[in-house]
Amino acid sequence: MSKHINMGNIKSEKIFFLTVSAKDIFHESVKKALQKEQWIITSDPLKFKFGEVNFQIDLGAEKIIAAEKGNEKIAIEIKSFLNPSAITDFYSALGQFLSYRLALAEYEPERVLYLAIPLDTYKTFFQLEFTKTAIKQYQVLLIVYNPVDEVIVQWIN
Amino acid sequence: MSKHINMGNIKSEKIFFLTVSAKDIFHESVKKALQKEQWIITSDPLKFKFGEVNFQIDLGAEKIIAAEKGNEKIAIEIKSFLNPSAITDFYSALGQFLSYRLALAEYEPERVLYLAIPLDTYKTFFQLEFTKTAIKQYQVLLIVYNPVDEVIVQWIN
Repeated sequence: MSKHINMGNIKSEKIFFLTVSAKDIFHESVKKALQKEQWIITSDPLKFKFGEVNFQIDLGAEKIIAAEKGNEKIAIEIKSFLNPSAITDFYSALGQFLSYRLALAEYEPERVLYLAIPLDTYKTFFQLEFTKTAIKQYQVLLIVYNPVDEVIVQWIN
Repeated sequence: MSKHINMGNIKSEKIFFLTVSAKDIFHESVKKALQKEQWIITSDPLKFKFGEVNFQIDLGAEKIIAAEKGNEKIAIEIKSFLNPSAITDFYSALGQFLSYRLALAEYEPERVLYLAIPLDTYKTFFQLEFTKTAIKQYQVLLIVYNPVDEVIVQWIN
């Protein structure tokens, strides 16, 4: 929406543009990584309703994609963790994950939801005691991806 | 951080400034509303640690305050819901609420966490089937406040 940010600082503007495009690059990277493991991307984004809430039109949030392999059906919330504050990104990722899981349970209970996170974030923020406790408590399933090599590093159920 | 947004549109700039200050106004409004009900504000913001995570320095998120009345101790995540997308605000509110509740359970288990939401948002977004289901599923306790009259309208346990 806001194409130009004037903070009297060219560096900030550059960072802004980098952030926007990196989010898309990470999104495509996860899709390619899944395809390398023979997953077929069936929806990008995955669209469904829960009552009056349309789950594809929350533009501020990360898009969810759907994939299938044989009889397995999954949905993936692709998170780039590009915000300077990992905890702020984590709040929105967790809230979105738990909201989607709740809605998916009604709409398509056989589809399993994963949160995809970049390897760097997994090695740092996701090793903290708090993050490990939260992931365990709320049973968040993780896909750790390498956005540069475009591969899945680990599935954590 | 970004003081000036140049979108070639003076209206957008005005909305931006309004949003930033409204968040603070809503924060103060909830504090005054609690004080009217004889709550004593003991921390603003409430600061605590969980392992290496400092819970007061997530600048992008809403600040949590602490209050006491007699033997009752509460913490309140004050949410203004000023984002044009209520669902995006809800994701971060829910994720932050569940993260804080988890951390508080370790740090100060007797303190009960509430999510404070404006009356207008309660009357609209929080009446949707999805939102009601999520609030029930994740046992989110609500304080509904009127930011104009600076009063608590309802406590929902």
